[in-house]
Amino acid sequence: MAPPRIDDTHAAGLQSWLACANQPGTDFPIQNLPYGRFQVGDEPGWRIGVAIGDQVLDLQRAGVLDHSDMARLLALAPQARQALRRTLSEGLRQGSPKEAAFSAALHPQASVRMGMPFDVGDYTDFYTGIHHATTVGKLFRPDHPLLPNYKWVPIGYHGRASTLRVSPDAFPRPMGQLSPGHGGAPTLQPTRRLDHELELGLVIGPPSRQGEPIGIEDAEDHLFGVVLLNDWSARDIQAWEYQPLGPFLSKNFASTLSPWVVTLEALAPYRQAFTRPEGDPAPLPYLDSAANREHGAIDIALEVWVQT
Amino acid sequence: MAPPRIDDTHAAGLQSWLACANQPGTDFPIQNLPYGRFQVGDEPGWRIGVAIGDQVLDLQRAGVLDHSDMARLLALAPQARQALRRTLSEGLRQGSPKEAAFSAALHPQASVRMGMPFDVGDYTDFYTGIHHATTVGKLFRPDHPLLPNYKWVPIGYHGRASTLRVSPDAFPRPMGQLSPGHGGAPTLQPTRRLDHELELGLVIGPPSRQGEPIGIEDAEDHLFGVVLLNDWSARDIQAWEYQPLGPFLSKNFASTLSPWVVTLEALAPYRQAFTRPEGDPAPLPYLDSAANREHGAIDIALEVWVQT
Repeated sequence: MAPPRIDDTHAAGLQSWLACANQPGTDFPIQNLPYGRFQVGDEPGWRIGVAIGDQVLDLQRAGVLDHSDMARLLALAPQARQALRRTLSEGLRQGSPKEAAFSAALHPQASVRMGMPFDVGDYTDFYTGIHHATTVGKLFRPDHPLLPNYKWVPIGYHGRASTLRVSPDAFPRPMGQLSPGHGGAPTLQPTRRLDHELELGLVIGPPSRQGEPIGIEDAEDHLFGVVLLNDWSARDIQAWEYQPLGPFLSKNFASTLSPWVVTLEALAPYRQAFTRPEGDPAPLPYLDSAANREHGAIDIALEVWVQT
Repeated sequence: MAPPRIDDTHAAGLQSWLACANQPGTDFPIQNLPYGRFQVGDEPGWRIGVAIGDQVLDLQRAGVLDHSDMARLLALAPQARQALRRTLSEGLRQGSPKEAAFSAALHPQASVRMGMPFDVGDYTDFYTGIHHATTVGKLFRPDHPLLPNYKWVPIGYHGRASTLRVSPDAFPRPMGQLSPGHGGAPTLQPTRRLDHELELGLVIGPPSRQGEPIGIEDAEDHLFGVVLLNDWSARDIQAWEYQPLGPFLSKNFASTLSPWVVTLEALAPYRQAFTRPEGDPAPLPYLDSAANREHGAIDIALEVWVQT
């Protein structure tokens, strides 16, 4: 695994010929360049776009890609992904000879419809937030909130891929069985405790083959980027159903994703050494690598904005 | 939900012009007619076939279907499925005028390659075998093996759709972390306790829409048929990882399906009243129906043959 490469595409002073991309506070400066899928008007199918300022650049129309197949984009090797980032960065920066061609391929983000950024075959919901796991565990086991396996093996379970939607899609409030409390029959009713969970979704790019492990040194080559994920949870349904096999109907009515995938390349400046908390066991060798210790962490802040 | 229809396609005395289908003990008499996908030689893509005796009938070549898209076949409404069963039964029975046309569309099963019978988007592994759940539960909770929710809400979890394979595909023995016993570090090694689980897979045909419940009276209209499913399990990996979110890596390395889907129509003669065990609570109204009480059960025996 090569170290995350910081280059001129990340330079803080880099400016675009698109003025709105240079506004302080924009989510989409020229250093970011996340990918998504969008539709213009009623046309069928999806185009691949990159967010820049308050615009979206149509990659096929801009002549950057010769297709609109996100699965092909996700499958690119890291080197090809880095080359694409460079093409976009150079084409969007001040003084680029591509300004005219790229300008003709821009749409205001407010005018397009964003779709699921990619198709999902399977996904895994990992229980890796130690503060969350400890808090939840204390409810059931005040004396030993974390089980003996927690610091050794990644704990996770499969989510329902078919109910993933792009944010801010709405969905009906789920119905489910609620606990009868002390004995008696449960009741079927709409959830009264619909909760959000802010999670970071890691998007797998180049695939693996069934039964062929990927060494920890090569694992990052299979990560394309990250999305935000709201793992909606019906807490009252969850409390009744979750034993012994984990949450199921309380989670799988809907999960919503951000429309934009931020690439691992864009996150290079935020990489940090992975510092093992004192007292924690060293990972087993197959989960450990020098590269991971040196820059296995990403230091970013996630925010929830609740509309009331 | 209409009651399962028993008609002349199920008659015990019905014979085919294909002699091997009339052999006592065949898995594929004219009363069965399960669907699958097969390939002949090196050709790309899949054909839809129906098993009859030791042969497979190519449905497109026989002029019965005008496509080879199993997703379209699965989505047929029950009436259309019943009509297709009738067409096949009449064409294959003794004296049929279609004998010549159908004969030209037969391949020996031994000469074709069977594929996954359908593509799977998501699947759920239900914990509905009460003897299994009680036995497993006793290991952890000798005094109350079944948790209070067990007889009220269907307990299940998502499986990994991408590692479903058609039987008898081989796969590498999975590796995983094994418990360190009393303290110490776990070890990474190949499973020593690879187990099989014989399960019945219910195949969803006509789809539902996210957020729109299907009434219990209409649920059976969405069932296409059944497959056998081997839910391979690495018991030693499972014992270490499964708390608190259920089995994960111990199950998702592979699950194997039968190549043939037996339709609900074919199972009509095996339907039974659903008799609630004495002392069990009545299902909540949304899980209960008169039709379900009258013929909600299927009385069939499943067998495991272990090759040694």
